[in-house]
Amino acid sequence: MASLTIDGETGTTVMRVEAEYSPPRSWRTWLIGRPLPTADAPHQTIRKIVGLAVFASDALSSTAYATQEILFILAAAGVGALGNVFPISLAIVALLVIVTISYEQTIHAYPGGGGAYIVARDNLGEAPAQTAGAALLTDYVLTVAVSISAGVAQLTSAYPELFPYRVAIAVGLVLFVMVVNLRGVKESGAIFALPTYFFIGMMFLTVGTGIVRYLTGTLGQVVNPPAAETAGVLTAVTPFLILHAFSSGTAALTGIEAISNGITAFREPRSRNAGITLIFMAGILSTLFLSISFLAGPIAAIPSEAETVISQLARTVFDERGVLYLAVIAATTLILIMAANTSFADFPRLGALHAGDGFLPRQFTYRGSRLVYSRGIMALAGIASLLIIVFRASVTALIPLYAIGVFLSFTLSQAGMARRWWKIGHLLPGQEVHEPGSTLRYEPGWRIKMAVNGFGAACTAIVMIVFAVTKFAEGAWMVVVLTPTLVFIFFRIHHHYKDLAAHLSLENYSGPPNVAPRHRVILPIGGVHQGTLVALRYARALSPDVTAIYVSSEPAETQKIQAKWEIWGQGVRLVILDSPYRLLIEPLLAYVEKVAAQRQPNEMITIVVPQFVPKRWWHNLLHTQAAMMLRLALLTKPGITVTDVPYHLNGQPGQNEANHHGMPPEFK
Amino acid sequence: MASLTIDGETGTTVMRVEAEYSPPRSWRTWLIGRPLPTADAPHQTIRKIVGLAVFASDALSSTAYATQEILFILAAAGVGALGNVFPISLAIVALLVIVTISYEQTIHAYPGGGGAYIVARDNLGEAPAQTAGAALLTDYVLTVAVSISAGVAQLTSAYPELFPYRVAIAVGLVLFVMVVNLRGVKESGAIFALPTYFFIGMMFLTVGTGIVRYLTGTLGQVVNPPAAETAGVLTAVTPFLILHAFSSGTAALTGIEAISNGITAFREPRSRNAGITLIFMAGILSTLFLSISFLAGPIAAIPSEAETVISQLARTVFDERGVLYLAVIAATTLILIMAANTSFADFPRLGALHAGDGFLPRQFTYRGSRLVYSRGIMALAGIASLLIIVFRASVTALIPLYAIGVFLSFTLSQAGMARRWWKIGHLLPGQEVHEPGSTLRYEPGWRIKMAVNGFGAACTAIVMIVFAVTKFAEGAWMVVVLTPTLVFIFFRIHHHYKDLAAHLSLENYSGPPNVAPRHRVILPIGGVHQGTLVALRYARALSPDVTAIYVSSEPAETQKIQAKWEIWGQGVRLVILDSPYRLLIEPLLAYVEKVAAQRQPNEMITIVVPQFVPKRWWHNLLHTQAAMMLRLALLTKPGITVTDVPYHLNGQPGQNEANHHGMPPEFK
Repeated sequence: MASLTIDGETGTTVMRVEAEYSPPRSWRTWLIGRPLPTADAPHQTIRKIVGLAVFASDALSSTAYATQEILFILAAAGVGALGNVFPISLAIVALLVIVTISYEQTIHAYPGGGGAYIVARDNLGEAPAQTAGAALLTDYVLTVAVSISAGVAQLTSAYPELFPYRVAIAVGLVLFVMVVNLRGVKESGAIFALPTYFFIGMMFLTVGTGIVRYLTGTLGQVVNPPAAETAGVLTAVTPFLILHAFSSGTAALTGIEAISNGITAFREPRSRNAGITLIFMAGILSTLFLSISFLAGPIAAIPSEAETVISQLARTVFDERGVLYLAVIAATTLILIMAANTSFADFPRLGALHAGDGFLPRQFTYRGSRLVYSRGIMALAGIASLLIIVFRASVTALIPLYAIGVFLSFTLSQAGMARRWWKIGHLLPGQEVHEPGSTLRYEPGWRIKMAVNGFGAACTAIVMIVFAVTKFAEGAWMVVVLTPTLVFIFFRIHHHYKDLAAHLSLENYSGPPNVAPRHRVILPIGGVHQGTLVALRYARALSPDVTAIYVSSEPAETQKIQAKWEIWGQGVRLVILDSPYRLLIEPLLAYVEKVAAQRQPNEMITIVVPQFVPKRWWHNLLHTQAAMMLRLALLTKPGITVTDVPYHLNGQPGQNEANHHGMPPEFK
Repeated sequence: MASLTIDGETGTTVMRVEAEYSPPRSWRTWLIGRPLPTADAPHQTIRKIVGLAVFASDALSSTAYATQEILFILAAAGVGALGNVFPISLAIVALLVIVTISYEQTIHAYPGGGGAYIVARDNLGEAPAQTAGAALLTDYVLTVAVSISAGVAQLTSAYPELFPYRVAIAVGLVLFVMVVNLRGVKESGAIFALPTYFFIGMMFLTVGTGIVRYLTGTLGQVVNPPAAETAGVLTAVTPFLILHAFSSGTAALTGIEAISNGITAFREPRSRNAGITLIFMAGILSTLFLSISFLAGPIAAIPSEAETVISQLARTVFDERGVLYLAVIAATTLILIMAANTSFADFPRLGALHAGDGFLPRQFTYRGSRLVYSRGIMALAGIASLLIIVFRASVTALIPLYAIGVFLSFTLSQAGMARRWWKIGHLLPGQEVHEPGSTLRYEPGWRIKMAVNGFGAACTAIVMIVFAVTKFAEGAWMVVVLTPTLVFIFFRIHHHYKDLAAHLSLENYSGPPNVAPRHRVILPIGGVHQGTLVALRYARALSPDVTAIYVSSEPAETQKIQAKWEIWGQGVRLVILDSPYRLLIEPLLAYVEKVAAQRQPNEMITIVVPQFVPKRWWHNLLHTQAAMMLRLALLTKPGITVTDVPYHLNGQPGQNEANHHGMPPEFK
């Protein structure tokens, strides 16, 4: 499949051929599967049913603890205050609906994905966009660390003998999820779908049975409830307490943004498929959350560190600890670990968007052999593992850092959408404005939509502030410090890429000087032998202006070199640099710098270094690597090119053995 | 001071100039002193009085424990058997005299230094020489580890709260001795002379007072002697027991070889100065050792883990623990640490001899800024520190590995001298034979000298075997395994250097082909920008045959590159390699290999790689380092030269800012 084109005007020949290289089978093939060609990309997308499993596990896992979080706060006002849990949950679901509508609109408006980042970028500007992105990226890392640690905590509760190994187990699980994700979104979806649907099934069975038994009047209360942890002095049910409980319960919202960041993973029509999946997810989430919060009242669930509300509910509904109870507990453990998978689906995509805009290292845009952003996946696994190691896999230590980022991104995303409605409202009917991520057209109901998004933004902003204030001392300050730091780093990176592009741009560039350059070649030698002669031959092919340089530390050795050069040097000029301090690189550098300082404008300088390539790697330990050190030192000097002429020891030796006891030839 | 010579026959110009570089002041200057020019070498030698301090500390430190070692073995036959200590000590001193005579002769015969290694090399052959060298090098490392650990053990006996930090303290002391030795032999001698002479003074004062009191009848017995550690069942005084006790006592001989390896450190006439120093050292050593062994009887010293014999002697002689007693203990502690300094003086010199013969990496022959073999000094400190860390600074764990190597080298050295006498005896009067290390002339008394050396060799061989057998299970097996392994490695290294020299030799070499080579240049590009054009200009200066290569992963990007190349490519042929698996390096390598396989005999291939040099080091993280990876991959392909053409971002950017949101230009 080779093609040949010749440009009519300049006569430039362009040949296009398929590379004659296909990746060999290796341990990588075994681990992550055979490499996929770029043309396979459309087949590597997922259906709605898999998409729900991949992107909903984070959000759904929050039903495992959201009700309990509300109860914990309300308990400060005594057992009587616990009844507020259902109205508060209704309010949270109302907020959930607003946020869902907001993201539903985002998904259709921005089919290229990116959620809060893209919305903020196109409507609020670069700084809010980077803030949203930094907050989300941080939160994804924390989600992995927290959810895996929580899963391992469940495991070590059941098997306390595993407790000393919790960090290793947690890091092992992170690496497992990483490898599965490196296999591609399709395969990881297929592998992780089962536990997600198992969780959904078990939860619906639990709350369904509970509601039927409530309606039929056969639902009892929790038998042997765990000891309630109430403060000595009870507070009153103040508006602040309600607000605090509300904020804690909004943990149910975390993960709702996941689909908006992962639209590109869906099969076409992807906006439609992603949108439908979001509605399903929000529906399942609201139903489960409301049901659990509702049933918490009749069964008289108690917030406790010793037993989760889910456990209390399951054993009350299923009459003590049978097979069904155990299945609910197992499913909950699994979904907590699965929640990490959602981050693995989103973090690399969001990272690639940042990198594509030049705010993260460009390497994050590179799709690996399985068409996923493998650098992002590995970076996520690496940072999350580090967090787990530093925090010793402790959920209590990690949780205060969590969720602030998500609510910051909710706020920016909805504020951005509100601004977008405002812009749409000020267009003329029929007018179209193209922005990088979306196209704006006038819509009649823009005022009400703007109000909804604005209200949502205000609510999520309040939740974020309540989070930051109430958890500040416990560790939230780290996030408050980290997010602006990340934004600063992102802008530094962007500055570098912009600067680079400006330097390299060919617009208004007149081209390099057209005069034929003078070429000056410097050949540092460490001895006179076959390797030197190969380099000398190369140097003379480059230019007639060659100077050989020998740095002399020992007079006797230098005498020999000079005599040999007079025989073998082909008349090329030799400069002997006496080095009284026995240094090699430094005098050479000083010489080259002097030559460079005196050169004419049109003069190129090339240093040709004979580079010995040994047969075995350990032989490198037996040589001084002067060539390498010279390269490194000269790389920073502008306008000097370093060429290593390799000399390989593959042929047969010459007829004469070298002097047995003699010093080996000096060599670079 | 530049000189210019032009060879009459070939017309080759040779310029000789002093390098325009003097080392700047830095933290190294502060740590190890200002660099010394090579011309200073003769001033960096030491006088006899300093030489005794540098090279005798190892040998003299053995008086601190040699008597005690004999008593420990004899104790197995009960307190009555302890009386044998003096006759055994007399026998050991007789052996010491033989060994001293042997080394005295070696020093005068081999003024270039090297002791056992050089003697074995010139008289017994390469394998015994390498064995002697390996044994000695191993023993020097062990001397450092053991003596520093023993010194730290004395310290932690006095201050038990330091015990948890013993490894850190020991490694710290090793590094301290290393730094002082890096300052040069003269300075380290000056610094370490004081403690050595302090020890000699204190010991003479102790044994002198003891003997005077013994003669005047005022010397008592040890008050409150420590509990004797005797075995439950007493053995008889068998010849084997006496032999075992003798062997243990020969610890007094360790270090006697030090001067023979360090002759080159002495001021001229160095053989004479070294020889006199050796006799002084042997005299002091014998006197102290014999005196201590003699006094052990009258004072009824008891071998004990709880209190050393030196301590028992000092408090008996000085009537309990006064200032003089404390001074003796302090001096003993210091001399144990000082013993390491002897190894630091010898190991690098011996290493340099091995390296000079091509049996160790050539880097060990390099003299650092203070004219010492700094690589050897650092290697010794590194390996000894590692041993200390692995063995947790435990003297008991390290001591079984110790002393075997020294006695192996004694044996080989004396056997070599015996062989040398035999060769001398078979010369004609007036005949001279030049060997690499010495010159042979007929001497009349060769038979008796050969007999002395032969007897000495036999004695030291027996001691070595007794050591190896009695300590085998405790760890001596490691030395028995390690020494041949080291010899094997030395020969592998030598093979490499010999092979290299044979390959590179210009004898019988006809020179490279004289035909002007064809030069084919390949220019991989990652984009079309100013950096590419600089590299293109360079490539075209090398050869008219330039092919640019672009590896294509994304069709849209490739279109742009092609269009730009048609404008800026100066008519140079462009090959676009479609890479379906999004790989960059591998398809490029496959292409280069194909070109290389098809080349003609006289064709040179150069890969010109545009190399971006960023302003700050961390910017490298933002680029893929493809140029570096390409270099590494191509280095192993014979006949292909890689040239990086650096492009520096130092100038002003062009007038046009790059697209703000656009992807940064693809770049290597």
